[in-house]
Amino acid sequence: MKDEPRRVEVALGERRYLIVIGRGLLDDRELLRDCVSADEVMAVSNETVGPLYLERLESAFAARRFASACLPDGEHEKRLESMLPVFDTMLVNGLSRDCQVIALGGGVIGDLAGFVAATYQRGVDFVQVPTTLLAMVDSSVGGKTGVNHPRGKNMIGAFHQPRAVIADLAVLDTLPDRELRAGMAEVIKYALLGDRDFLDWLEAHIDAAMARDPAAMAFIIERCCRNKAAIVAADERESGERALLNLGHTFGHAIEGARGYGDWLHGEAIAAGMCMAARMSARLGWISAAQRDRAITLVERAGLPIRAPDDIGPARFREFMARDKKNRNGELRLVLLRNLGDATVTADYDPRALEATLEAVGHE
Amino acid sequence: MKDEPRRVEVALGERRYLIVIGRGLLDDRELLRDCVSADEVMAVSNETVGPLYLERLESAFAARRFASACLPDGEHEKRLESMLPVFDTMLVNGLSRDCQVIALGGGVIGDLAGFVAATYQRGVDFVQVPTTLLAMVDSSVGGKTGVNHPRGKNMIGAFHQPRAVIADLAVLDTLPDRELRAGMAEVIKYALLGDRDFLDWLEAHIDAAMARDPAAMAFIIERCCRNKAAIVAADERESGERALLNLGHTFGHAIEGARGYGDWLHGEAIAAGMCMAARMSARLGWISAAQRDRAITLVERAGLPIRAPDDIGPARFREFMARDKKNRNGELRLVLLRNLGDATVTADYDPRALEATLEAVGHE
Repeated sequence: MKDEPRRVEVALGERRYLIVIGRGLLDDRELLRDCVSADEVMAVSNETVGPLYLERLESAFAARRFASACLPDGEHEKRLESMLPVFDTMLVNGLSRDCQVIALGGGVIGDLAGFVAATYQRGVDFVQVPTTLLAMVDSSVGGKTGVNHPRGKNMIGAFHQPRAVIADLAVLDTLPDRELRAGMAEVIKYALLGDRDFLDWLEAHIDAAMARDPAAMAFIIERCCRNKAAIVAADERESGERALLNLGHTFGHAIEGARGYGDWLHGEAIAAGMCMAARMSARLGWISAAQRDRAITLVERAGLPIRAPDDIGPARFREFMARDKKNRNGELRLVLLRNLGDATVTADYDPRALEATLEAVGHE
Repeated sequence: MKDEPRRVEVALGERRYLIVIGRGLLDDRELLRDCVSADEVMAVSNETVGPLYLERLESAFAARRFASACLPDGEHEKRLESMLPVFDTMLVNGLSRDCQVIALGGGVIGDLAGFVAATYQRGVDFVQVPTTLLAMVDSSVGGKTGVNHPRGKNMIGAFHQPRAVIADLAVLDTLPDRELRAGMAEVIKYALLGDRDFLDWLEAHIDAAMARDPAAMAFIIERCCRNKAAIVAADERESGERALLNLGHTFGHAIEGARGYGDWLHGEAIAAGMCMAARMSARLGWISAAQRDRAITLVERAGLPIRAPDDIGPARFREFMARDKKNRNGELRLVLLRNLGDATVTADYDPRALEATLEAVGHE
């Protein structure tokens, strides 16, 4: 017997869409055909995931014009030049403005294929089929698409909402442990930034989750999608509240940039970044030392790094942080914790707390 | 004594903006500062135009954070890779999401800088300062931005409306004759596709226009901008009427593609393309031979090519035309003339008229 898929709506008026969550969705041709309505389909994947799942899409869309491209795996492929072979495949196959792009993969593929869809012939529809925990709970929802620039992460991109997100929990069975942990960093993020009840639940169930207990995973993914859907619906273009989703990301992006993209996984960098945000918040007196440690302990229990590499000095951190998209008029805006489950975006903090946190990198 | 600038509004609701047309606008610091409101300004130009006018922008915005980049001149620079050094300059100069991009140049710079603005940090504002006749009457108005792909023109891009368009007629004084003629192709296009009175006026004043009579140029630019503004306001995303602006472009883009971008100027290719559209419309019996010849004669009086190069065969034409963004479900949609001053977008035509027109390329 199969459970009915869960559905989460992202309420964006004309651009509203459904996130469908369940086991075996990639084998459900009817669902796939419902979600991807175009007569012309372009699937974008990578060399790890493509060989596993691309065939299912191909057979579901056998009656349509179907083309696909597989990029090499990894964050360093998320750049402008990697889009060219994808455009090339689309043009060689004569795909028109009425085609739809399917992003089959993790965050890198989702962001890149979404940006391809945003810019092919000035914009075509796309559907996200996330294959990592991180993509299911975060990057496939919300319409942020784009690529990295050598000088900063996600610096080139567009807001382009998907038509649907199809999260097949069965694909998580083969997800490498390191990727599972990296995804858990974003899961913990939702708890810390605004969902205290979920934080309590996570502390009680983190071991089950790390053991891939199906019920725990299903609960986690739906909960995170609901959290993200609510935030995105309230602030699609990140003029306010949506920036909270960047908890740990200003520090984390600096770690990724300083190490070179792909050395640390995004989720690993965000994990260490959240711990830095917790330490800085404690230095400011906004949370207690006990609360700080509670946050860090949860990150550690998920098998994630709680410290940035000690070879990134304060100057290097500041160099990357200065390019953060949240900054306004040269002020460094950070997402910090006023409480566990209550984050805020602010440039109004004692700069000595930031300085001390950067100085202590690797040592606390 | 200076004439007051003329102002044309593009009515796009929240994204409405003004086109300001007049002599000496680039010396009007107050106007420039009004139109470009951001504290951080990025000017994008080319190596021909930049040395002439960039300094005026720099001094107008001396009190702000100002950066600039000059690309090599020419259509073959309009590609994805050319955007990278522009992004690089913006990041090195620490420009935030609140910056504004100024496109100072012709159609290539306008399209490319507009696409840079559409995608830098997922979108920043931009202002068009067109320096060619073609850019003033066409490419700087309407929000189509993008770059070419080796397999097709404008295949990668976004809709991104400018905040303002500043058309300084004085810059046309130094515009090379060939560029002036190329711009006149788009001017004639507006007359043929939907403005019969303007067609009559053009036939009476084409010699004055080609001699750069200031009053004639001012009239032409305002008239074309009003025509384009009305069409864009009615159909921003080109779901219908806006495709009329593509008169001559399906044939013209094929000429550009087959010759390699930059050999023929865009306006030259469009001129020959409009003559092909007129000949095909006459073959269909939609216009008379006399009307066809009237259209072709006007193109010829503007010093523009009335024939495509005879080394592009029908197969090559079809290859490029098959990739046109207007096509739907494999049907080749063309902009054809039902009358002088009355164009239509349709796939409902006798294919033999197209075949005969392609067969006769270079010979009629």
